[in-house]
Amino acid sequence: MKVGVLGGGQLGRMMALAGVPLGQEFVFLDPAEDACAGVVGDLICAPYDDEAALAQLADAVDIVTYDFENVPVASARSLSDSLPVFPRYQALEVSQDRLREKTFFSDAGIPCALFASVDSYDDLVSAADEMGYPCVLKTRRMGYDGKGQRIIQDRQQVDQAWSDLGGQALILEAFVRFKRELSIIAARSTRGETVFYPLTENRHKDGILITSFAPANAGLLVERARAYAIKVLDNLDYCGVLTIEFFDVDDGLVANEMAPRVHNSGHWTIDGAVTSQFENHLRAIMGWPLGSTDPVGASAMLNWIGAMPDPSNALSYPNAHWHDYGKKPRAGRKVGHVTINAENILALQAELGKFALALGEQLKESGVEAFTRGH
Amino acid sequence: MKVGVLGGGQLGRMMALAGVPLGQEFVFLDPAEDACAGVVGDLICAPYDDEAALAQLADAVDIVTYDFENVPVASARSLSDSLPVFPRYQALEVSQDRLREKTFFSDAGIPCALFASVDSYDDLVSAADEMGYPCVLKTRRMGYDGKGQRIIQDRQQVDQAWSDLGGQALILEAFVRFKRELSIIAARSTRGETVFYPLTENRHKDGILITSFAPANAGLLVERARAYAIKVLDNLDYCGVLTIEFFDVDDGLVANEMAPRVHNSGHWTIDGAVTSQFENHLRAIMGWPLGSTDPVGASAMLNWIGAMPDPSNALSYPNAHWHDYGKKPRAGRKVGHVTINAENILALQAELGKFALALGEQLKESGVEAFTRGH
Repeated sequence: MKVGVLGGGQLGRMMALAGVPLGQEFVFLDPAEDACAGVVGDLICAPYDDEAALAQLADAVDIVTYDFENVPVASARSLSDSLPVFPRYQALEVSQDRLREKTFFSDAGIPCALFASVDSYDDLVSAADEMGYPCVLKTRRMGYDGKGQRIIQDRQQVDQAWSDLGGQALILEAFVRFKRELSIIAARSTRGETVFYPLTENRHKDGILITSFAPANAGLLVERARAYAIKVLDNLDYCGVLTIEFFDVDDGLVANEMAPRVHNSGHWTIDGAVTSQFENHLRAIMGWPLGSTDPVGASAMLNWIGAMPDPSNALSYPNAHWHDYGKKPRAGRKVGHVTINAENILALQAELGKFALALGEQLKESGVEAFTRGH
Repeated sequence: MKVGVLGGGQLGRMMALAGVPLGQEFVFLDPAEDACAGVVGDLICAPYDDEAALAQLADAVDIVTYDFENVPVASARSLSDSLPVFPRYQALEVSQDRLREKTFFSDAGIPCALFASVDSYDDLVSAADEMGYPCVLKTRRMGYDGKGQRIIQDRQQVDQAWSDLGGQALILEAFVRFKRELSIIAARSTRGETVFYPLTENRHKDGILITSFAPANAGLLVERARAYAIKVLDNLDYCGVLTIEFFDVDDGLVANEMAPRVHNSGHWTIDGAVTSQFENHLRAIMGWPLGSTDPVGASAMLNWIGAMPDPSNALSYPNAHWHDYGKKPRAGRKVGHVTINAENILALQAELGKFALALGEQLKESGVEAFTRGH
């Protein structure tokens, strides 16, 4: 089966690495000539709304999916006239717009932060005063890795936030004091089968995910997260992998955002679960039985941000699973990750300590140090 | 780093699937237009001795390796004038010719069956009479999956064997009565680091590998197999993954043949070891540190011969690791494999029983039944 993917970044690349052993071949549509998924499939290099390119993709493949959620809804919708497109484009509509997303959570009975639409300076002032401080002003669209957000600590910071972000559709959200971020990754197949991975605990630095830990020690929160995920899957008639990020707060979970795709916080599943999120996404959209989501011991996933470390240092630790996305170095860019596994959480801490030693001077940039201290 | 591979079959394909996460890109040279590795790299479609194609490959890559051992030695040697080629072409010379291979084993002090060169009918008669019956007549070159072999049970069968195989360079070998076949996979890096996978127990049907089990219950034979592998690695100044197949006989191990490459009996390492044979082969030839060869529990690998089974049956068993090579169905052709893991051998038997149920009617073709009975 030929799979078309809108977007040819590292998620598409890892999807193809999981799909080729299933007998699939891949065609990516991406505006970047050096889209890193191109080495494991064909690459159509064009804007996402290029009609000729979309037609070329539709001709070449049997099914279409995404490697990121900010592709134009119109492109997904037009492709779905001629072939199966999963997840359905309605999931893109919801997840592309923070206001629609929060409204969707709220309507589905999933707790989320108080929010208000902000289209003018007056909207902002009145919403902030009503909501109280601190609060967070965000662009409704195209936010990722902490981009397009300003925390407003008090009334005095309102004008600066407006001057930074004003002039586009915005949302103001109450600031959530959380203990940690947890994410759930679910997969639902076209046959209606649903599976869940264990919850993952995530840590960010400068708004970018740097480390994930799984299975998170989350007790009763696991069932709650699954119940919320089922609401999203049901309400969107969803097929494929879905990710929801939650804040862990005193009285339960607060949904932060959802991604209608495989997710960075699920990269540990490649080396730390029986079946990876990438494989289950592909099985789900093809209508194949889903694979086991059981974890194999405990895993830590560390993102490489900006540039890859020297493998000859890092891999002197023999249990590391290396993932170089083949991307050019650039500040703040996710260029790869590494996964460390162990039998259980205690053993994992010890293994992470050994890995930190192998990394040596690269330690400071890696986030490993904070990670081993924190657990 | 760009890696060139002579041969673009399933071994090259799985090598690329392991190498892309290391940041590598692949170029394959293969005479077949539909070489199945082509979906995960560039494919130069030409005979292995095509000088222009070899020059094109040399221009495109930083290092060269093989996915099968019957490429012309002259091609490997000429490439090694301009770039690193691992394993060195001398390993091809030895492994392409059963007579040189047996002589090499013998000279290195590695036990192997009695053997004699056969270039004429008279050679055959006198060697067979001296060696005794049964004995095995084999072509010296291009034998694989049981091809080019005739067992001679008694004097009466000599003429038929000669009429089947005569007219090419032959070798006569004593018939070894063995309990089972065991293989060892070793990796040695350009920096001299050496690692070994656990021994694998292999079963064949019609001369084709159908099932592998690892780690084999092999006791003291493990150290013996490693010692023999070290002799081969040392004597050939070897870099990369090396496989040796042994017969398990009453007084130890008898070497049957070696392969200067990743091997079918190591496919379980993709899903059942910390680092796969494919990744360690690539790390070895690049001079990177080698990854852990520790097994993750116990694994069974089942080859799919001829055609892939229906995945919707087989994958209703959720712990299966599916490997479809993307090859056209053909009798006797290896088109894929599946790996089943469990915590230990006892648990693996139970899991294999469940998998056999999932396979249903496909069971008879799969070899699973014999496999579960036998353990």
